[in-house]
Amino acid sequence: MIKIAIIGYGNVAYHLVEAFKNHPMVELSWVYNRTLPQQHNIPDTCQITLQLSNIKEVDVAIIAVTDDAISEVSRQLNVPFVVHTSGAVPLSLLNNEGKKGVFYPLQSFSKSKPIDFDAVPICLEAQQEEDYQLLETLAQTISSKIYRIDSGQRTYLHVAAVFANNFTNHMYTLAHEICSTHQIPFEVLQPLIRETADKISLLAPKEAQTGPAKRNDKSTLAKHMALLSTEQQKLYSILTQSIQNYGD
Amino acid sequence: MIKIAIIGYGNVAYHLVEAFKNHPMVELSWVYNRTLPQQHNIPDTCQITLQLSNIKEVDVAIIAVTDDAISEVSRQLNVPFVVHTSGAVPLSLLNNEGKKGVFYPLQSFSKSKPIDFDAVPICLEAQQEEDYQLLETLAQTISSKIYRIDSGQRTYLHVAAVFANNFTNHMYTLAHEICSTHQIPFEVLQPLIRETADKISLLAPKEAQTGPAKRNDKSTLAKHMALLSTEQQKLYSILTQSIQNYGD
Repeated sequence: MIKIAIIGYGNVAYHLVEAFKNHPMVELSWVYNRTLPQQHNIPDTCQITLQLSNIKEVDVAIIAVTDDAISEVSRQLNVPFVVHTSGAVPLSLLNNEGKKGVFYPLQSFSKSKPIDFDAVPICLEAQQEEDYQLLETLAQTISSKIYRIDSGQRTYLHVAAVFANNFTNHMYTLAHEICSTHQIPFEVLQPLIRETADKISLLAPKEAQTGPAKRNDKSTLAKHMALLSTEQQKLYSILTQSIQNYGD
Repeated sequence: MIKIAIIGYGNVAYHLVEAFKNHPMVELSWVYNRTLPQQHNIPDTCQITLQLSNIKEVDVAIIAVTDDAISEVSRQLNVPFVVHTSGAVPLSLLNNEGKKGVFYPLQSFSKSKPIDFDAVPICLEAQQEEDYQLLETLAQTISSKIYRIDSGQRTYLHVAAVFANNFTNHMYTLAHEICSTHQIPFEVLQPLIRETADKISLLAPKEAQTGPAKRNDKSTLAKHMALLSTEQQKLYSILTQSIQNYGD
């Protein structure tokens, strides 16, 4: 049985509570939160506290608060092993006295949307091998996708996620804008968007690249440019150039 | 019973044959192709021809050849109703004597991957309402997502699809490159990529936007820039700026 505390009650913490709370190998002993909503998913067997120093008799405390607060929160914890859940913060920012680690579930969470945690990649890091083993055992109770990622790699993974998530979503915003302006229901593009996302589980994205930029179809490229706003043109032209640079 | 001919045997034609061939309301009478592979999916009841002028006694001929060939192929067809399947070509480029239309299935097709045609949006256009009704009846035999899209709208839809598919895939290429360089398995990002694609079926993409650009988190933006190559930096900086322009 691994006894854990969860620090915070944002989107990540909410889903961690949901995933861990009924697992026979895990005892969710404490949740720390200052502004717990009346409706929450924390079981009665778990103690809720407003004081970090109250938390005791746990194997691991999992910090799931905003990046800026991780350092200070970790300083106030008096438990043998503290991990944070952030993709952007190095392990070394943890300020607790004991063991340190990272337990980073790489997914976009929102409380309103249930999540299949078994499919969520969890990226782990610890300073000692036995600590890593404990994190791995804990992570395996909720997910079948565990990766060993050190702080250096995690920084790069975080910026890669900006391309794969934030910038991709911005491409959807531009497609949505073009559709709205011309009374085309955006849902027409949804199956193509899903197929594009699915395809790269079979094929490296560079191999999956298609379209007028890739083919250097100058007539279509010119026609498209003529249809776009100045802002859209700027992106269209830079992204077309970049696809061609990568095609070489 | 609607009698059809399919002109060409590329990816789109292959999947149209597959979708139509066993439907009780459709008779696939002819397929035109000059270089049919030995292994194909055309039923024995269908005639295969190397001569466009041989094709007769069909209600609709569906041209699924490269954009550049549509005009010439349509000129040689002697059937009452000719449609093409291209997102980029206006109806007016059809050169046949009779009725003209467009039957544009908006999806990325490859022969190696089976497709659930029922979920593929089909964008229809015709010159007369009764011709549209025939196309709609035909399209409904294979898909439940039918849209009336005229040639003007289709041009914009095509450029929107470049953002939603080609440019999105390029974002995956950059994420893949960053992961490879730092020995991170790209599959770690796959669930996030899928979630990003799925989320916009519930939320407009502009509302779904998250990340350091959206938050104007200057410290993370600067950290990320420092990790990237010159080409990656250029895109990171322009896309960050564009997200911020759209956030206003």
